[in-house]
Amino acid sequence: MHPISREREILYTVLNFVPAIYILHRKVLNFEGAIVVMADSSGFTLESVRKSLIRQEDTLVFNLIERAKYPIVPQLYDDGNCPILPGSSDSFLESFVKETEAVQAKFGRYQSPEEHPFFPDKLPESLVLPPRTTQILHSAAASININKAIWDIYINKVLPLIASEGRDDNYTSIAGCDLQCLQALSRRIHYGKFVAEVKFKDAPEEYTPAIQAQVTFSHYYTDVANQLLMPTIIIMIS
Amino acid sequence: MHPISREREILYTVLNFVPAIYILHRKVLNFEGAIVVMADSSGFTLESVRKSLIRQEDTLVFNLIERAKYPIVPQLYDDGNCPILPGSSDSFLESFVKETEAVQAKFGRYQSPEEHPFFPDKLPESLVLPPRTTQILHSAAASININKAIWDIYINKVLPLIASEGRDDNYTSIAGCDLQCLQALSRRIHYGKFVAEVKFKDAPEEYTPAIQAQVTFSHYYTDVANQLLMPTIIIMIS
Repeated sequence: MHPISREREILYTVLNFVPAIYILHRKVLNFEGAIVVMADSSGFTLESVRKSLIRQEDTLVFNLIERAKYPIVPQLYDDGNCPILPGSSDSFLESFVKETEAVQAKFGRYQSPEEHPFFPDKLPESLVLPPRTTQILHSAAASININKAIWDIYINKVLPLIASEGRDDNYTSIAGCDLQCLQALSRRIHYGKFVAEVKFKDAPEEYTPAIQAQVTFSHYYTDVANQLLMPTIIIMIS
Repeated sequence: MHPISREREILYTVLNFVPAIYILHRKVLNFEGAIVVMADSSGFTLESVRKSLIRQEDTLVFNLIERAKYPIVPQLYDDGNCPILPGSSDSFLESFVKETEAVQAKFGRYQSPEEHPFFPDKLPESLVLPPRTTQILHSAAASININKAIWDIYINKVLPLIASEGRDDNYTSIAGCDLQCLQALSRRIHYGKFVAEVKFKDAPEEYTPAIQAQVTFSHYYTDVANQLLMPTIIIMIS
C-alpha cells in the first residue's frame, strides 16, 4: 500500500460528502481540499463529472418526492421486525435492503465504482463479468464506504423532513422507495470521489501538499451532514 | 364460481387498460364499459381513486424520465443472457426481475391487490402477515394479470420511444430503472380494476346489462395499446 493511503482515504471520505453538497447547493464550496492520484482517464473531465452530477440531482429529487407520498410507518424501521429471520434484530427495511442488495450483487451492481452496498458483509459474488472500463480512481477509493452514516442521516433526518408518521400497509412499496432514496443519496455522495479526482487532475500542485501534510477533515463530516445537507435537501424538495 | 365470472374477467381485463389511459390522457374515455360486484368499501370513492391515479401518473412519468437517461443496451434484452442460470433462455432483465420479485414476494408485496408480479410462477410465499384491509374488488379480480402484455409493450414500444441503442456497463442500474417503469405501468394499468369497481358502484344499473349480455371487448386490447397508450406516453414525456 502506498504510504499516504490512509490520508488519501480520509480525504476521500470527507470529499465524498463535500463535492456532493457543492453540487446540491451549487454555492457551497468552501472546503480546503486535497486529493489523490489519477489513473489514465481520457474523457473523464470536470464537464463530464458535472453532467453526471446534474443527472444524479434529478434522480435524488424524484426519489425523495416519490417517498414523500407515503407516511413514516414505524413497523418498517423498528428493530426486530425482520420477516425473513425471526429473532434477528434487523428492522423490516434493513432486512429488505440486505435481501435486495444480495440479488443486485449477483447481477454485478457493486462491480461499478459508482455503487456502494449498505450491507457489504456476506454479499454473494457477482455472476456477471466485470465491465472493461478505465480505472479512474486510486485503488484506495474502493475501501471508502460511508453508507452507514448516509443510512442514519436518511432515516433520522431526511425522512422526518419529507413525511409524517402514519399507517400504510404497502410495506414493500415504501421500503422500495426508501431503497431508491438511499441508493440515490449513496451514489451521489460517493461520486465525490470522482469530483475529487478530477479536481486533483486539473491542479495536482494545489492538492499534493495537503495530502502529504496528512491533513484530515474528519470534523467536517458531522458539520456537513448537519448544517449543509439538511438545508440543501429542504431547498431541493420545497 | 359465479356464472358470469368469465365475462367479469374479460371486462376487468379490458377495463384495466382503459381507465388507466383515461387518467393518463384525461380526455380519452369512450369505452362502453361494464363491471363487477362490490364488497363493503366505505371510504372507497371516485375521489380517492382519482387521487391515487394522479400520484401514480407522477410516479410513472418520473420513472420514464429516469430510464430515458440510459441507452437501450441489447445485452439486457437478448434471450439467453441470464447470468444466474447459464443455459436458461431468460434475458438479463427477465432474470433480474424474477429474482427481485422473489425477494419482494417474501416481503409481502403481492398480498396487496394493487400489485401484480410479472413472473407469478414459483414465487415464494410471503413471510409477512397480510394486511387487514377491506376487500374492495370482486374475487375474480385476483386472477387478472396482464403483465405479459405490459412487458411486451414496454420493451418493444415504450423503450424505443424514450431511449436509443447504446453502450453502458451499469446493467443493474438500467435493469433497476426498467423494473421501476414496469412496476409503475403495471400498478397503474391494473388499478383500472378499482376504477371500474367504483364506477360500477356509482351506477350499477348502467353496467349490469352489459355484464349479463356477456359483452366482450377483447378487440379493445390491441387498439388501446397501439393507438392510445403510445401517444399518451409520448405526450407525457415530451
